[in-house]
Amino acid sequence: MKIHAVVMAGGSGTRFWPLSRRARPKQFLPLAGKLPLLADTVKRLPPLAPIGRTYVVCGPIHARAVRTILPKLPKENLLVEPVARNTAPCVGLAALHVARRAPDGILAMLPADHHVARPEQFRDAIATGARIAAGGAIVTIGVTPSRPETGYGYLEVGAPLPGESAVAGGQLAPARVKRFVEKPDRAKAEEYLSDGGYLWNSGIFVFRADVILDEIQRAMPELAKRLGAIAETLGTRAYAKALAREFPACPSESIDYGVMERSSRIAVVPADFGWSDVGSFAAIPEVRAADEAGNVVSGDALVIDGKDNVVLADGGRLVAVVGATGLVVVDAGDALLVCPRERAQDVKKAVDELKRLRRDALI
Amino acid sequence: MKIHAVVMAGGSGTRFWPLSRRARPKQFLPLAGKLPLLADTVKRLPPLAPIGRTYVVCGPIHARAVRTILPKLPKENLLVEPVARNTAPCVGLAALHVARRAPDGILAMLPADHHVARPEQFRDAIATGARIAAGGAIVTIGVTPSRPETGYGYLEVGAPLPGESAVAGGQLAPARVKRFVEKPDRAKAEEYLSDGGYLWNSGIFVFRADVILDEIQRAMPELAKRLGAIAETLGTRAYAKALAREFPACPSESIDYGVMERSSRIAVVPADFGWSDVGSFAAIPEVRAADEAGNVVSGDALVIDGKDNVVLADGGRLVAVVGATGLVVVDAGDALLVCPRERAQDVKKAVDELKRLRRDALI
Repeated sequence: MKIHAVVMAGGSGTRFWPLSRRARPKQFLPLAGKLPLLADTVKRLPPLAPIGRTYVVCGPIHARAVRTILPKLPKENLLVEPVARNTAPCVGLAALHVARRAPDGILAMLPADHHVARPEQFRDAIATGARIAAGGAIVTIGVTPSRPETGYGYLEVGAPLPGESAVAGGQLAPARVKRFVEKPDRAKAEEYLSDGGYLWNSGIFVFRADVILDEIQRAMPELAKRLGAIAETLGTRAYAKALAREFPACPSESIDYGVMERSSRIAVVPADFGWSDVGSFAAIPEVRAADEAGNVVSGDALVIDGKDNVVLADGGRLVAVVGATGLVVVDAGDALLVCPRERAQDVKKAVDELKRLRRDALI
Repeated sequence: MKIHAVVMAGGSGTRFWPLSRRARPKQFLPLAGKLPLLADTVKRLPPLAPIGRTYVVCGPIHARAVRTILPKLPKENLLVEPVARNTAPCVGLAALHVARRAPDGILAMLPADHHVARPEQFRDAIATGARIAAGGAIVTIGVTPSRPETGYGYLEVGAPLPGESAVAGGQLAPARVKRFVEKPDRAKAEEYLSDGGYLWNSGIFVFRADVILDEIQRAMPELAKRLGAIAETLGTRAYAKALAREFPACPSESIDYGVMERSSRIAVVPADFGWSDVGSFAAIPEVRAADEAGNVVSGDALVIDGKDNVVLADGGRLVAVVGATGLVVVDAGDALLVCPRERAQDVKKAVDELKRLRRDALI
């Protein structure tokens, strides 16, 4: 039962501007440490999935950056989507490639831009997921919530799977999924937290190649048809052409909405491995150590009488923050951002404005 | 009755770091517009005091900068203090130079780093001050307060001078000074404002050279002795040596405390010419136009959903401020400051820390 890790690196968000740019989105930034998030993601996989069984899916403008960051990634394991079509076509394409090597091979779908504080527990959860997925289930990894977070989707845990039991530390047993829940408001989030039967939807999935292709066939026949046309060319010279023709015609849909939420074969593996989706600069304190005053700093930063600030001063000059609380200050060299932490979601507005102003060099 | 303007440019404050540095203190910065405050100060003097009757007093490390900014200033009108000794010795030295040209010549002592929004009204006030000073009074210019400012000293207005009357616009008549008041707390400041009989102490003085030298003789005999030794050498080759010997031995005292507050010859000319001492970055909105949201910006700044911010982005890169209120963000190229406006006084703490860290290039 071999696990094939599929790292989804096709994102192009703007919430980490000015560090992130079109050619260098979030997954290429060293937000949680010294390495880009993508490199961290791949590094935590062995021995579960060695580099030979690791795939990376990305867009054409990022292929070169992926090869630079992951020089040991086999050439054929870099899957380049001609255009971004959300996660369902991405999953389908990866499943085709894995199925060709092993029809019942197991895929672990991993966002390239998340953070994991405890890799060993992460691998344990994936291994458990793979064991359950081997039996035909589509497994999602559910993270035990530690706070009433309103920025994540949740899932409600159903009955434990037959023969599974709660693991050490009071974690829930692998179980059926009762329902998926969209990002809640604060009151709902607190309800979910105290209820104990809700988990964060991590966006990490584990399933057999044949099982997910079956499910796509059932739930997204249009996508299945396009994938079928690509599948015929796998390993031949016609592949590139077929991909360029079929992939852009795939429906742009998330695997969550397109398949998971409509499937009856969903199971969840509850886990707690210090997960964060690093959703914005406001999440940096979740993934980097803060000082006693709650400040997270890097580079040439000087914080005086300040607390709970995020100051990333790697732009080649001193950044001094005096008497401030809860600010994000990020220097990218050619551009600098100042923003209250609770407004970190709005950083994209700056990018929108720069687009309007046609300041392409800064986008 | 000729007016000799004496511009005091010896300041070395750190509250405008990172724009201000040791070699480039506040008076050399274009804080209120395109020109350095010193240049603005000299530019608003004619026809009251043409450049030939304008003196600038500064320290040795700033003499070159003064000459660069004021190329038309006569060489002999640049008075270089060997060391800074507060304003009393500065006033005394200037009075010696003016007295040599005209013993009863009138001096208008002007801080180099203040802002005046309405230069014509400023000149009217100085002219009135000169008229009154010609009779032997020591005149201070008192500014009609527009808000309960706690950052300024005040003076309480006494009886109107004989023959003087209130000018147009309800301004108080030139008057005796009842007392000088230190920076008040908020409650006191509001009391002064509603009382109507208090004015801001602008630090601008007008007096005859012989009168102020008399007063120094009376109130500060030690200073008078040193000045006397310098006076003997004026216009001779021995001057530089005498200055280097005597000036450092002068008591370091302000003219306010050393002379003004102990003199019985003090008069005040109330005026309202849009004055600000530009005390910190928090005062920038007093001297530069704000946009509709109250933001004052310069350079390559982008403010989104922000209000009441001061963003000086002349450091050669974009500074984007998103969702912030009441911040000061100042980019000097090699260093950048972020600070809440109400903490702008604490900018000097950053300079202290840089001194401790021996980061001389940034101080």
